[in-house]
Amino acid sequence: MSKFFSSRFDCLEAYTPGEQPQDKKYIKLNTNESPYPASKRVVEAINAEQVASLNLYPDPTANNLTDAIADFYGVDKDNVFVSNSSDDVLSFCFNAFATNGKGIAFADITYPFYPVFCAYYAIDSKVIPLETDYTIDVKKYFDFQGTVAIANPNANTGIFLPLCEIENLLKSNLNRIVIIDEAYIDFGGESAVQLTKKYDNLIVVQTFSKSRSLAGGRLGFAIASKEIIADLNTLKFSFNPYSINRLTMVAGTEAIKDVEYFNECRKKIAKTREWTKDQLKKMGFFCLNSSANFLFAKSDKISGEMLYKKLKERGILVRFFKKPRMSDFCRITVGTDEQMTVLINTIKDVLQGENL
Amino acid sequence: MSKFFSSRFDCLEAYTPGEQPQDKKYIKLNTNESPYPASKRVVEAINAEQVASLNLYPDPTANNLTDAIADFYGVDKDNVFVSNSSDDVLSFCFNAFATNGKGIAFADITYPFYPVFCAYYAIDSKVIPLETDYTIDVKKYFDFQGTVAIANPNANTGIFLPLCEIENLLKSNLNRIVIIDEAYIDFGGESAVQLTKKYDNLIVVQTFSKSRSLAGGRLGFAIASKEIIADLNTLKFSFNPYSINRLTMVAGTEAIKDVEYFNECRKKIAKTREWTKDQLKKMGFFCLNSSANFLFAKSDKISGEMLYKKLKERGILVRFFKKPRMSDFCRITVGTDEQMTVLINTIKDVLQGENL
Repeated sequence: MSKFFSSRFDCLEAYTPGEQPQDKKYIKLNTNESPYPASKRVVEAINAEQVASLNLYPDPTANNLTDAIADFYGVDKDNVFVSNSSDDVLSFCFNAFATNGKGIAFADITYPFYPVFCAYYAIDSKVIPLETDYTIDVKKYFDFQGTVAIANPNANTGIFLPLCEIENLLKSNLNRIVIIDEAYIDFGGESAVQLTKKYDNLIVVQTFSKSRSLAGGRLGFAIASKEIIADLNTLKFSFNPYSINRLTMVAGTEAIKDVEYFNECRKKIAKTREWTKDQLKKMGFFCLNSSANFLFAKSDKISGEMLYKKLKERGILVRFFKKPRMSDFCRITVGTDEQMTVLINTIKDVLQGENL
Repeated sequence: MSKFFSSRFDCLEAYTPGEQPQDKKYIKLNTNESPYPASKRVVEAINAEQVASLNLYPDPTANNLTDAIADFYGVDKDNVFVSNSSDDVLSFCFNAFATNGKGIAFADITYPFYPVFCAYYAIDSKVIPLETDYTIDVKKYFDFQGTVAIANPNANTGIFLPLCEIENLLKSNLNRIVIIDEAYIDFGGESAVQLTKKYDNLIVVQTFSKSRSLAGGRLGFAIASKEIIADLNTLKFSFNPYSINRLTMVAGTEAIKDVEYFNECRKKIAKTREWTKDQLKKMGFFCLNSSANFLFAKSDKISGEMLYKKLKERGILVRFFKKPRMSDFCRITVGTDEQMTVLINTIKDVLQGENL
């Protein structure tokens, strides 16, 4: 830390992205990327002419992209905010709607970036533990006066919270914002986007990183009332107006229009997830009921940390969290069928090698 | 504004990017883009395979890119911070080093984003007017105890502040940060980067948007002491760790390695600028002594606003600022020789049409 760094950041601990070791080629099942390449429409659209045109600024209003997202969800374009990843979008949401002194509530096990945003923006957080079965009881948020952030399906557990529960939460206090972070919604959940037409205290945040195979493009969006979207744009235009580059703008527009490929990929991933879960269960693993593109699994034959290490030695990266209630588990991204077959066979080897 | 928006943003007025009207095809001389396409090395590097790989996250450490920038400037990679445009970089600099209560000083005429950052982060600003000849007198900053931000060459004037003056400013108070924003440095100025080896209170910020023909890619960087770079990374990793997308990472790496094309473009632009300045002077314009890729010019035959309007009617966009000391001027980006010939002929027509 330099002597010049603002003292308000003395205790700021930054987010740690999933590891990206460069020492050898791994089967990467640690950062919940799609195992499938970007849509062919994306590949075709980003041609040499587009690349040569990088000398020109992108459209700061992101007109084509917001049109395409609005079309997909049947909302007005004024209901759509886009920025450089859903982390960016969430960051602006926290700053816009959780810095009024009432704080923000979220689960103990959820996207680990929420507490980082709180530290960054000096927002008080109220951490509400998941139930013993790792589900969310929305009633526990009813009396909280501040903003609420819920990942749905929840990060790391993959468990989906039904929309009727979200509606109960929205109705319980119409004067506070509820952020529903739907990074993993397309693999088995149902989006709350349509509820934004009924509830002006709802913000739905999504990403192109998972179901749309664009983690490398950095693109996220929010859908909410026009007034909320205008607020988010006020912040974005006070921070970095051209936050989405030209090529990602094209990529996102094509990706959301290619509904066929989107459906093909997410169906394949859901199918592979169920197969993998069955295989893990046959080996005695306990898996939470994931509606996402990952499995959160544990075995009483091997600790989460040991499984993570043994798999890494064998060229497979999964994610392990050394945190209360999570350290027994590994979070395993759903890859291709081939990758998951290698995973399952490798876990078998590991368990045999452990002589268990 | 929604009823949920944090009251701290009640008075926040966002930055207004240069207009991008879609009604017809304009000669765009209003946002200081390069008129030359991205380097051929960039176009070749962003191939179909790269685009298809957008399903994978970018390298959050931006290893290849920071290596290439460090090589170009002869600094260590730990001295290089990269993010999604120099606006992003500046925003993090303001947050990291100007939120300690001492405020930040900058000129009355400079990059108009500085006061927006101040409003966004609730930073007190001290505005120090340029001299009557539009130059900066660094002595006027010596006694200020807070952070200092200077665009060099200065935004809108294009006037270059010699490095000896910057060194005097750095030495005048070693306990406060000086941010030198070198967006336009490559068109005739001399970078202060080498001074970062001697002064740990200096941050040099640059962009790929101008001299490297990548405005559409969104890429900026800072060079400073390792400790300062670590602080900036702490903030970036608490906001959006993967802030640079995969394709821009590749584009930036190739662009900075293509020294030949870089030199060719910036020399052409400097030459075209001098030709344009001569032509404008022949028509009675007063032009500030620009070392940038734009000219700040005024004529007592026509107001800045009228010239802007007449040029827009004729398909040429320049930038006009309705602000004290600036409203007589237009800021004209240096385009290709062909574009500037059209500009000069059009201005001649406008002046004749005005019967002046």
